[in-house]
Parts: sequence; structure tokens; C-alpha cells
Amino acid sequence: MVTVNEDLAKRSKFAYNDIEEDDAIASKIEKTGKEVIKLNRGDPPQYIKTPDYIIDAYVDALRSYKTGYVDMTGIKELREAVSDRYARSYKAKVSPENVIVTQGVSEALAFLNNVLINDRDQAILFAPYYPQYMPLLQMYGGSPIIEKYSEKLNWNLDIDSLGRSLKRMAKPQLRKVKYMMITNPNNPTGTVLKRDYLEDIVDLANEYGLFLVSDEIYDEIVYNGAKFTSVSEVANGVPHMILNGASKVYDSTGFRIGFMIIPGTDKFSSKVSAKLKDYATVRLSVNTPAQYAIAAAITNKKEHEKAIKNMVKEISDRVNYAYNLLKKNEYLDIVKPNGSFYIFPKIKLDLLKIKDDNDFVVKLLKDKNLQVTRGSGFGGDGHFRIVSLPTKSILKESVDRINDFCEENKKK
Amino acid sequence: MVTVNEDLAKRSKFAYNDIEEDDAIASKIEKTGKEVIKLNRGDPPQYIKTPDYIIDAYVDALRSYKTGYVDMTGIKELREAVSDRYARSYKAKVSPENVIVTQGVSEALAFLNNVLINDRDQAILFAPYYPQYMPLLQMYGGSPIIEKYSEKLNWNLDIDSLGRSLKRMAKPQLRKVKYMMITNPNNPTGTVLKRDYLEDIVDLANEYGLFLVSDEIYDEIVYNGAKFTSVSEVANGVPHMILNGASKVYDSTGFRIGFMIIPGTDKFSSKVSAKLKDYATVRLSVNTPAQYAIAAAITNKKEHEKAIKNMVKEISDRVNYAYNLLKKNEYLDIVKPNGSFYIFPKIKLDLLKIKDDNDFVVKLLKDKNLQVTRGSGFGGDGHFRIVSLPTKSILKESVDRINDFCEENKKK
Ligand SMILES: Cc1ncc(COP(=O)(O)O)c(C=O)c1O
Ligand SMILES: Cc1ncc(COP(=O)(O)O)c(C=O)c1O
Repeated sequence: MVTVNEDLAKRSKFAYNDIEEDDAIASKIEKTGKEVIKLNRGDPPQYIKTPDYIIDAYVDALRSYKTGYVDMTGIKELREAVSDRYARSYKAKVSPENVIVTQGVSEALAFLNNVLINDRDQAILFAPYYPQYMPLLQMYGGSPIIEKYSEKLNWNLDIDSLGRSLKRMAKPQLRKVKYMMITNPNNPTGTVLKRDYLEDIVDLANEYGLFLVSDEIYDEIVYNGAKFTSVSEVANGVPHMILNGASKVYDSTGFRIGFMIIPGTDKFSSKVSAKLKDYATVRLSVNTPAQYAIAAAITNKKEHEKAIKNMVKEISDRVNYAYNLLKKNEYLDIVKPNGSFYIFPKIKLDLLKIKDDNDFVVKLLKDKNLQVTRGSGFGGDGHFRIVSLPTKSILKESVDRINDFCEENKKK
Repeated sequence: MVTVNEDLAKRSKFAYNDIEEDDAIASKIEKTGKEVIKLNRGDPPQYIKTPDYIIDAYVDALRSYKTGYVDMTGIKELREAVSDRYARSYKAKVSPENVIVTQGVSEALAFLNNVLINDRDQAILFAPYYPQYMPLLQMYGGSPIIEKYSEKLNWNLDIDSLGRSLKRMAKPQLRKVKYMMITNPNNPTGTVLKRDYLEDIVDLANEYGLFLVSDEIYDEIVYNGAKFTSVSEVANGVPHMILNGASKVYDSTGFRIGFMIIPGTDKFSSKVSAKLKDYATVRLSVNTPAQYAIAAAITNKKEHEKAIKNMVKEISDRVNYAYNLLKKNEYLDIVKPNGSFYIFPKIKLDLLKIKDDNDFVVKLLKDKNLQVTRGSGFGGDGHFRIVSLPTKSILKESVDRINDFCEENKKK
């Protein structure tokens, strides 16, 4: 008898999610009867009900038996709605043929790497980054070149530093860089990138022949006077891809609807776009009634206007409330967010008997039963992330626990 | 200026779906105002409405705002329903922890290869096979070893031939074989595998240390006196994985709900299972209200009993009707199906002025505006596949067109 070959694929080692470890600790605490406050999942529907006009559209699709397979790149109605939205809001030159519907931006990220990354290829990511960028790049054989958003520039792009890095790279290395990825507004920092910087990064992408990918999943969740600019507004013919989706702006994370938009008419964009459509056929189609729901959600501008205004008001109230409380904590340093719904404080480790952000997060969870997320998982060592979506009373209680925790762990 | 590196990933070349090519021809015909009869998509909801009790459960979940992210391996209710179903129907020893919910069996197939296949690994597939097995294996670096279901044995497993093949393989090659995959009931042949053969294949898997994967997505769509046996019924401790899903049996292809079940308590099964859960966390969760809908669909045995009885009666009526008409065509040779809803005739090419199945399918589409699927896409050269789900009048018209087509193309 031969025994089963027990080796898993090498890429498996990259499949992980930091959340799991802390979730296990939290479960253990909950089993002792204690309640854990969780500020760790960026899941708006948990806190703000998905608007009824979207639910109604979803129900309508079900009641009219839209329950079979559909166009593998997405139903026409949704691809049209998405391209109209980008044309209307950002004057992007897009048509429904430039849009591919995916199972969340999560699947879009898998498709991106699947189609572009060979062994030993690279991609430029900016830290702090959305954690899932990393396993998805690495599983397909790639490795990251980490640039940094600048905390000093309120987590905006440090174009000079990026320019210097690119200049230092030799041509053969640059040829291995398959894309450069930004997140705007950002998770975990809550920063909306400034238009000037975006224009500059487009110029650099052009100069160095880099394919620019912009994850704009929080595009309408912007406040405190910030103005969002889409890369499609400033791309000026430079090959690029926009990732977006319904999860956050349409308050429907559980629908799993994402979009890839490749507006370019250049040869490379067309090639990528055609191949992405082939990838879509391999997994058949995306949830059908959810696609109809989101097509209706995007198309119904009046209802969306109301819903998003209400949501952004709620979110900014909560973020600003927590921010104002937290900023009084002398052990933390915080850039004020103006987009998405995260706060990303820096821990003044020199003032605390705490080794690093892992230590901070695990002890805070164990001692105070408050779950936040480690900064190091975002490539932002020494920070932690708060999802600032719960009610003010929960946020108040959470900040109290953080304050107590810091006091109890301060150096003498 | 450096230009964008225009190379796509090498794996991209494996991303394809035969459907695309024929769909393009069909679209062209439709643009001239003609109607094409399509017998090419295995999509029950197009022909038989998704049962209202399932739609109701879906609507309930939406109306109670179950719209956020959930457990990344699937909601407990659904994992419980699936494991209960396998325990009840097939006496499998499974618990909810052995179940992972996926975005259709399509995603389960991606996960399987993702977790097991390294460059130059292999998998044993039996032809004719479900086409998507191939790109998903190849994209992850693997290659197939093609064994055959035996047309002479009514498309059942030819265990002697498999035994001889395995015997011929040297140990080092066997170590590269990461899984052996069967489909029961089969797409495209419509065959339900006999229990004896399943017991034998389990024995061979055990003898040669092969991980056995059984795609049982059509498990309740069985008729003409056949009896379905799950691999989990006969596995007897041999490491294996069951793939199943809601698409066909719960008549809901557009919901994108699939299941991976890994019942074993052996070390390898546990390792695979744990890693698959990590993979799930990388893409966050599966459509939430659809999970609640299918959990209710499986749990509501009374309604399901009624729905599946009705569906299987409809399907078997239509399949038998088309089969009985087709078998009069002297240019075809057909094994009578007893599961799923496909018919897979062999074309007697020696009697026709037709080169191969591609030629047959493309000409039939162009001359008679009837779209069927090429056998070669399933590894079943010289055959074609009919989806026998439409009404009898459409099936009659289709068979008439096939008959006319054969007459017009017969050799003198
Ligand atoms: C920046 C960013 N991109 C992508 C995603 C993935 O979202 P989904 O798969 O729900 O579209 C998230 C989720 O938190 C995110 O924050
Ligand atoms: C044998 C088999 N497996 C898997 C699938 C994929 O189905 P889904 O992704 O809808 O679960 C199909 C669809 O036709 C199939 O026939």
C-alpha cells in the first residue's frame, strides 16, 4: 500500500487571515460567559440596516424567478449601471464591456493576480494596506514591493519617496512589477487621497510603465470636508484598473458583489480585459438576484442619494466621536480619518510596557475584552485598527477600556 | 519611458470555456433575426421554477436583514443542514465542522486544486468529465491523467482497466497524483455509478494511496430505476472529499451555493480541511441570504420531498422522451441516461460527411440553428451533449432538426 501524498500545495502557506487567531481568543473568553466588544469587522450592515429599497429590488428579482445562471461577466443591467455611475460621477470613458462583475472585490483581487502574476513577479503595495492583497498576490507566486503612505502627510502618498524608489529600480526589476495598487479611501487609515498626489502617481505609472490598480470600494464614504477623486478621472490614457463593489457604499457586504473596471482602449487593457472574461467563465456566474438588486440600487439615484447621505452622516458622527475621545489618550497618536470608517492609532510604545501591536491587541482583548485589529497585519506595525461603526455608547465604552488599559500598562 | 509589461500569467492560457465560441456563433445567427434553440446550459431554473418554499426562505432572510458578512466557512445552520443530510441519506459520519460552504461547486473545485496542486502534480480524471475540472487543475500547475468511463459498461467505471493503469504507474508518479475525481451522477453522460464499482474504486484508492474526490452535485436527480450511492457510504475510512451544492437538486444555479465535505478523521483529511478553511478566509464569506435560503431548503424535508419528486418526474419524462426519439436516429448510438439531465450520443462518423464532433456541432448550429455541446470539450470525442430540460415540444423540434441534419449529411 502506498500512502496518500500528504503534501499540500506550496502556495497554501500564504492562505491566512489574521482575524482567525484573535477570533479564537475571543471565542474562548465568550465561553466563560463574558461579552467581548468587537471593533474588528468592517461590516456596515451589522450596524446600519441595508436600505429597504435595495432589499425590495432583491426580493423582486427572487419573486420573478431570476434564479438561474446568467452572463458570466455579469448581467448587462449591472454592468451598465456601473459604467454609467463611473461616467456620471467621474467622467470616466467606460462602457458596459469594460466592466466585469465579481464575487466581491475579494474575487476581483484573485482574478487580478491570477491573470497577471507569474512566479517571481512583483507588485507595488503601499503600507498600510488592506491585508488580503498580500495572500492573494503571494498565492499566485508574486511578492510585494512595499512602499509607504506617509503618516506625516496624513497617510497620503509620498510621491517623492515613490519617485526615488522607482528611479532606483533597474529596468529588469521594473519589468517584473505587474501592477501598483492603491486604496482610496483607505482601509485601515481612513484617508482620502488628494487629487494632486493621484495625478502625480499616474505620471509615475506612465513614466515607469506600471499598470495602476485603484481599489475604490469606499468611494462615497467620505466626510470631514474631503473630496474623493477616482483614478479614472485623472488617468489620462494610462492603463489602469478600478476595483469597486457594493459591499460598503450599498451597505451589503453579504451580497458578494464586486466590479472590475478596465476603461483603457490601449492594447494591454484590452488583453487583460479579454482574459479576465475568460477567467469569469471558469467559475460560471455570480449570484443572480443580488446582481439585479445592486443594478437597481445603483440605478435608483434618488433613493441612493438619501441612503448614502444618511449612512455617511451616521458614519462620520461615529468616527469623529471616537476620534475625539481617543485623541485625548496620551499614549496614542492619531491621524484624523476622512473616509471609510476606520481609525488607525499609533501606539506610543515607548510610554507603555507593551512590546508591539500584537502584544497590545492580544492583551487588550484578554484584559478588557475588546477586540481591535493588529496594525502589523496591514503592514502598519505599532498601530491598531478600530472599526468605528457601532453606536456611540459602545464606542464610549470601548475608548474607556482602551484608556484604562493604557493607564494600567504605562511605564512608571 | 518603460512600457507596461504586457505578459499575462502563464496559467491564463488554461482559462477558457468551450461555450464561448459557440455562443458567439449563436449570437451572430440571432442578430439576423433567426431563433436558436439552445440545449447547451445545464440550468434547471430556466425550465423548472425554483420552488417557492426556497424563494420564501430567501426573502425571509433578506427581510430580516441577514445581509452582512458571516462565518467564512459558511453559516452554522447550513453546515449543519448539509452534514445532517449526508448523515441521514448516506449514513456518513460527518459533523458541521467537516463542511465548508463555497460559491458553487465551481469555487470548491478551485479550492481543491489551490490547496493540493503544485507545479507538475497530477490528478486522475475520468473521461467524459465535467469540462471545468480541466482548466482548474491546469491553472494551478497540474496536469490530468485521463482514465475512461466505459461506454460499453453504460458509462460506468471500468475497474479492471483502472487497476491495470494504476499497476503500471511507478511509485514516483503515483506520489504526484494528488487526487482521483469521479462525477456521480455524471455530466455529460447521465450515468449513475453502480455501488459495486464504487466499492472497487475505494479499494483501489486505498491500495494506491489516492485521495478520492466525488462530485455528487446531481445526487437526487436519479431515475429509470437507478440507485445513487455516495462515496461517503462506501469509503470505509479511506480519505475522501465530497463535492455537492444547491445548484441542481435545489434548482437554484444562480444562488452560487456549493459544499465541500471532508468526513475523514485521518491526519490528511484534517490537514486538508484546516487549510481549506484558511482559503475561505481569504475571500471572506459566501452570499449570506442565499445560505439561509439553502439551509431552510435542506431542512424543510417535507417541501423538498415534494419539490424533488416533481422535478425528477419532469426531468425523467423529458430525458426519456428525447432519448426515445433520438434512439431511432440510425446515425447515433446512445447509452440511456439514468441520472442528471444530459444525453450524450455518439455520432457514427463513418456514416456521415462530418469530420468530428466539432464539425457536427458547429454545422448543426449554423444549418439548423440548434445549439448542443461538443463532446470533445468533455474528453468525449465523437459525441455531443444535449441538455434535456426543455419542454417536449422543443425537444421534438430539436430531434427533428438533428434527424434532418444527419440525413442531409449522410454519406451516399
Ligand atoms: C479596501 C478593501 N478592498 C476590498 C475589500 C473586500 O470586500 P468585498 O469582498 O466584500 O467586496 C475590503 C473589505 O473590507 C476592503 O476594505
Ligand atoms: C458535475 C458538475 N460539477 C460542478 C458544476 C458546477 O456547478 P455550480 O458551480 O453551479 O455549483 C456543474 C455544473 O454544471 C456540474 O455539472
